[in-house]
Amino acid sequence: MELTRRHALAGAAALAAAPMLRAMPARAAAPMADKQAPSFYRYKVGDAQVNVISDGVNNFNLPDTFVLNVKKDEVNAALEKAHMPKDKMSIQFAPLVINTGGKLVVIDTGNGPAAYASSKGNVGQFATNMAAAGFDPKAIDMVVISHFHGDHVNGLLNAEGGPAFPNAEVLVPAAEYKYWMDDGEMSRASGDRMTGLFKNNRRVFEAGLKKKVTPYEWGKDIAPGLMAVESIGHTPGHTSYVLSSGSDKVFIQSDVTNLPALFVANPGWHLMFDQDPQLAEKTRRKVYDMLAADKMRVQGFHYPFPAVGYVEKDGNGYRMIPAPWSPVI
Amino acid sequence: MELTRRHALAGAAALAAAPMLRAMPARAAAPMADKQAPSFYRYKVGDAQVNVISDGVNNFNLPDTFVLNVKKDEVNAALEKAHMPKDKMSIQFAPLVINTGGKLVVIDTGNGPAAYASSKGNVGQFATNMAAAGFDPKAIDMVVISHFHGDHVNGLLNAEGGPAFPNAEVLVPAAEYKYWMDDGEMSRASGDRMTGLFKNNRRVFEAGLKKKVTPYEWGKDIAPGLMAVESIGHTPGHTSYVLSSGSDKVFIQSDVTNLPALFVANPGWHLMFDQDPQLAEKTRRKVYDMLAADKMRVQGFHYPFPAVGYVEKDGNGYRMIPAPWSPVI
Repeated sequence: MELTRRHALAGAAALAAAPMLRAMPARAAAPMADKQAPSFYRYKVGDAQVNVISDGVNNFNLPDTFVLNVKKDEVNAALEKAHMPKDKMSIQFAPLVINTGGKLVVIDTGNGPAAYASSKGNVGQFATNMAAAGFDPKAIDMVVISHFHGDHVNGLLNAEGGPAFPNAEVLVPAAEYKYWMDDGEMSRASGDRMTGLFKNNRRVFEAGLKKKVTPYEWGKDIAPGLMAVESIGHTPGHTSYVLSSGSDKVFIQSDVTNLPALFVANPGWHLMFDQDPQLAEKTRRKVYDMLAADKMRVQGFHYPFPAVGYVEKDGNGYRMIPAPWSPVI
Repeated sequence: MELTRRHALAGAAALAAAPMLRAMPARAAAPMADKQAPSFYRYKVGDAQVNVISDGVNNFNLPDTFVLNVKKDEVNAALEKAHMPKDKMSIQFAPLVINTGGKLVVIDTGNGPAAYASSKGNVGQFATNMAAAGFDPKAIDMVVISHFHGDHVNGLLNAEGGPAFPNAEVLVPAAEYKYWMDDGEMSRASGDRMTGLFKNNRRVFEAGLKKKVTPYEWGKDIAPGLMAVESIGHTPGHTSYVLSSGSDKVFIQSDVTNLPALFVANPGWHLMFDQDPQLAEKTRRKVYDMLAADKMRVQGFHYPFPAVGYVEKDGNGYRMIPAPWSPVI
């Protein structure tokens, strides 16, 4: 580094000022803070308010097959290009609490209390960060679920296995609910992961919620200003949303992409968790073409917190530009 | 938007599930949250901990001469390219509290209590956000000042005009201190802005701190692991820093650039607040060449919170890539 050359005036000034030094009292070293800031963030969409409430981060070693159709070396190269450590993966989770002006609407619920305990607070932070943001689960009017993976549905239940949002209507994509509750589909599930997902969804929706859910259709407003948009492939009923108020809007993508550094940059890459990778890619390209063309703000469940930005074309893929944080609402 | 076609299964599933709808209790609409999350963020540099503590944001109409050597239309084009509104400017402020393991070191102090009051809390948030982050001003060991503009020094004083950090040694760049305390330089100052800066610095360092400051030299560690680096041009004694711990480090640039969307993207643009624009540009190009070549993490006082990222070459300029937020330390 060649930045250390000395300014000619500095020496003389230091000599002149030296007598101003004063004795410092001895004091014990300050302990390191051991908790991150509570990770929540608010922004307006017209008259509505979006509260991004982090559910934390899952740090793990990069699996060999994290991207199904690309060698691990290429994944590592993309991580390094994005200034991220290679052979590691950090997936974040960003549930929302939207105040529509009339209703408090949660979208997706994070990994839930059991994961919070087993991860020592790394994931499952939705409940604590929601409390820090000033929201009482009993005040939530509606919980909207985008799809039935554990990081989206497990927070529907509290530590005792009952409803975490006792006064909320739970809205689920009709196609998603039909798929996971279908005994034939469950009997045909192959592999531990898919079998586990079916079992988990029976636990959440049958044992936990006693099937008290409201299936919703695509192409309609399911809460004030919140339109459900079909974006299948990641799961059979995977859903995105457009939140609109006046002329302002945001596209809430759910899991159209996972980590932007990998899957926004490379929309042709197939995430190991995409149930129908070809259909997921088709949806991803359609959504990202639209986001780039319309310069539309986008909120991504697995984007790094606060998980809101804009999309631009970049080579054969896209780039997600985080929206600047505002220290005031 | 062509994303609303209906999945074939959805209709049937909705019919089957319709009886599960339940009546919702009537409830008053939830009030909108009126305060942003306290904007602080912690990250590690080796064994040290950096706490980024936002001082808020100054929103104002874009002056015609905000960039001295470029027409306003070009500035607006750069804002629109960065998905920011044209004819507006939002400048953020990111003072730091660094825990070196032995010392609590503040770098720059924000706009101070008078600005907090007059802006209704938009700027001057350092004191409140520092409290939210768990830091007592009385526990601060050292305050390091990068240069003598009001958004960096005014927080040195409390609302009563006394030292805001009563137990801290205040370290100032020797060249900067000599310049602003020099009566000859003050007598030669031209224009309201420069005259006002001289007066403000006499208020802060003479009336407020009674000249109890320690001037420091470039090229040396001025606190554990914190090396002062000459980066003049913005002011005659403008200083950046390298914080190192073990093999880890971060470049703390201070005001080598203002808003990245304008001045990282266009290093040849001259900010109206750069006292020696040509020298500021030379410093900027030297620093950004180094940051890009070394892939070095950089913390910027006027970057959007949390104001830490990496620099890449982009066309004739550079691009600042925000480091992903981590919801855990």
